[in-house]
Amino acid sequence: MDVRAALATAPGKPLDIVTVQLEGPREGEVMVEIKATGICHTDEFTLSGADPEGLFPAILGHEGAGIVVDVGPGVTSVKKGDHVIPLYTPECRQCPSCLSRKTNLCTAIRATQGQGLMPDGTSRFSFEGKPVHHYMGTSTFANYTVLPEIAVAKIREDAPFDKVCYIGCGVTTGIGAVINTAKVEQGAKAIVFGLGGIGLNVLQGLRLAGADMIIGVDLNNDRKAWGERFGMTHFVNPKEVGKDLVPYLVDMTKSGADQIGGADYTFDCTGNVTVMRQALESCHRGWGQSIVIGVAPAGAEISTRPFQLVTGRVWKGTAFGGARGRTDVPKIVDWYMQGKIQIDPMITHVMPLTDINKAFDLMKRGESIRGVVTF
Amino acid sequence: MDVRAALATAPGKPLDIVTVQLEGPREGEVMVEIKATGICHTDEFTLSGADPEGLFPAILGHEGAGIVVDVGPGVTSVKKGDHVIPLYTPECRQCPSCLSRKTNLCTAIRATQGQGLMPDGTSRFSFEGKPVHHYMGTSTFANYTVLPEIAVAKIREDAPFDKVCYIGCGVTTGIGAVINTAKVEQGAKAIVFGLGGIGLNVLQGLRLAGADMIIGVDLNNDRKAWGERFGMTHFVNPKEVGKDLVPYLVDMTKSGADQIGGADYTFDCTGNVTVMRQALESCHRGWGQSIVIGVAPAGAEISTRPFQLVTGRVWKGTAFGGARGRTDVPKIVDWYMQGKIQIDPMITHVMPLTDINKAFDLMKRGESIRGVVTF
Repeated sequence: MDVRAALATAPGKPLDIVTVQLEGPREGEVMVEIKATGICHTDEFTLSGADPEGLFPAILGHEGAGIVVDVGPGVTSVKKGDHVIPLYTPECRQCPSCLSRKTNLCTAIRATQGQGLMPDGTSRFSFEGKPVHHYMGTSTFANYTVLPEIAVAKIREDAPFDKVCYIGCGVTTGIGAVINTAKVEQGAKAIVFGLGGIGLNVLQGLRLAGADMIIGVDLNNDRKAWGERFGMTHFVNPKEVGKDLVPYLVDMTKSGADQIGGADYTFDCTGNVTVMRQALESCHRGWGQSIVIGVAPAGAEISTRPFQLVTGRVWKGTAFGGARGRTDVPKIVDWYMQGKIQIDPMITHVMPLTDINKAFDLMKRGESIRGVVTF
Repeated sequence: MDVRAALATAPGKPLDIVTVQLEGPREGEVMVEIKATGICHTDEFTLSGADPEGLFPAILGHEGAGIVVDVGPGVTSVKKGDHVIPLYTPECRQCPSCLSRKTNLCTAIRATQGQGLMPDGTSRFSFEGKPVHHYMGTSTFANYTVLPEIAVAKIREDAPFDKVCYIGCGVTTGIGAVINTAKVEQGAKAIVFGLGGIGLNVLQGLRLAGADMIIGVDLNNDRKAWGERFGMTHFVNPKEVGKDLVPYLVDMTKSGADQIGGADYTFDCTGNVTVMRQALESCHRGWGQSIVIGVAPAGAEISTRPFQLVTGRVWKGTAFGGARGRTDVPKIVDWYMQGKIQIDPMITHVMPLTDINKAFDLMKRGESIRGVVTF
């Protein structure tokens, strides 16, 4: 069938709005009409050519929401008409990772997903007779897409697509890093490096978890007001502290009997390996945990003195906020509908597919928190 | 009073066996007659001059056992005649770290201990009229030493000094890394890098914790038999694997449905930062934890791609095995006395203080697991 899509034809080139062909779902697959999709830095990372695993041509996009319109043979967990969020981290509930109870990183379809293909090793998309790659197993920059059944989370039908699509990546990544990966407790002190979309969601995760001191760090003073909307208690612009950032932050977190200082939890939301080190070293001696969320450039490495670890700091990372997609994503949609978390103010731009390249530009210039395309 | 001691006069020089002067205990301090002391790589690290924080002249030694012979004013937790193990990591039970329930790294006397002094800022040792530094707050290379009350663990009186002195560092560090820091569970797969004294104690900690696969890695094939005595199930000599070590280890840990591979827990007991990276990268995707135990050379840094963390591996460290000295050391002594853990076979050499430089030579040549000096 004909599908309207933003096609990534080659690294570094704008997306082309074209009509591509989409085959129907095969066994264990579903077709979803995408109603809205967010535009995320990871899409930009791949489109720019910086992603060494990027494949072209491809239909990018991994932060969507929509309605199941067709199911292939053997599909049992969703049916036509169900509202769903596509999952770039699937949840098969049967692989060693899903059964480990220790990780959300399902491995059932990892190999083919990385090759831009469906689990049977083929693509459902084509353009002018030639196959087009899927992307992150989701390809939400098209008004219809095909996904494995294990890669859709069924959600409630009263949730607005143009808001909850953001739960498909940014919201879950930020909030999940706090509650699933760090398991932040009441009264904790935390530092969030980088107040983009992920960082703001980490802030609201920390507020949810009951953290007492929530420090936001960003080079852009405009982000102070943004951070305060989502629970930030203190703002630091590294350009304005007049000394090394790490001792400055450690001093800020000293209080009462505790004159050692350092945060209980820190979060890197920048993808900058220098910042990742600062985040680790801003942790409290003895127990501080630093969570890497940002995606670093290809080949970049983090480093520190092992003394930082031997004296009790812990270096961790998170992908999709440690969330199991089919299990946890519907809960986060509920939290949004209950008003427990906010999404609306972060959706700064909504536009039609034809304006998708403008959304990328706004993001690259730091002028949007989250741009959303509606179909 | 006159005390027989091995005096470290300058970096890189052998110890001098001399008579030094020791003042009695002041408020909150105890005097202990040291009956036996182990000789550890950390003593050698400082004696060699490689330790940037090393101070001279000093009485080294931090792995002792003995009897309280005198107590200063205000001491309530031990009395004359008590058998004790000196603690280079004290446990005051009142500082923010002790009260955090998250770390064993008591900070009550950290500053003065690092300066080679008692908590009041002075030394109890002197030689030829000049002050001599304490070392790690313990200075067990002397037949009498003075310690803060919070830096001695009271132990049962039937425990042999020339064995349980090893609990003052190596045994507790190795076993504690497994049970306190990693919290290894039944059935786990683990890899131990470096089968010296610490590594062997990690092995027996893993056996105690019920790990199923316990791989030991060492460049010295003689350590295979040693490892097997303490629970090792597989031995790997990196020089003999004929390929890169990390993929080799990952392959070894694949089994049944889990064809991803990687260990649930890895332990670096080498102090080599290249090995520390291998240990992290040999961990299972999604949940593997790597624990740094070894002390790296001054200025050395660990590094990896952040992708290793983002895909679920955790980098941690441990000091004194995460053990709270006064609380946990007496329990480990009990475990030894009950036969739950072994120490005797690891004590490969026992000698008088006059032969202490020979014990250092044996250790440097890798010919001893643990040398012990008795007084």
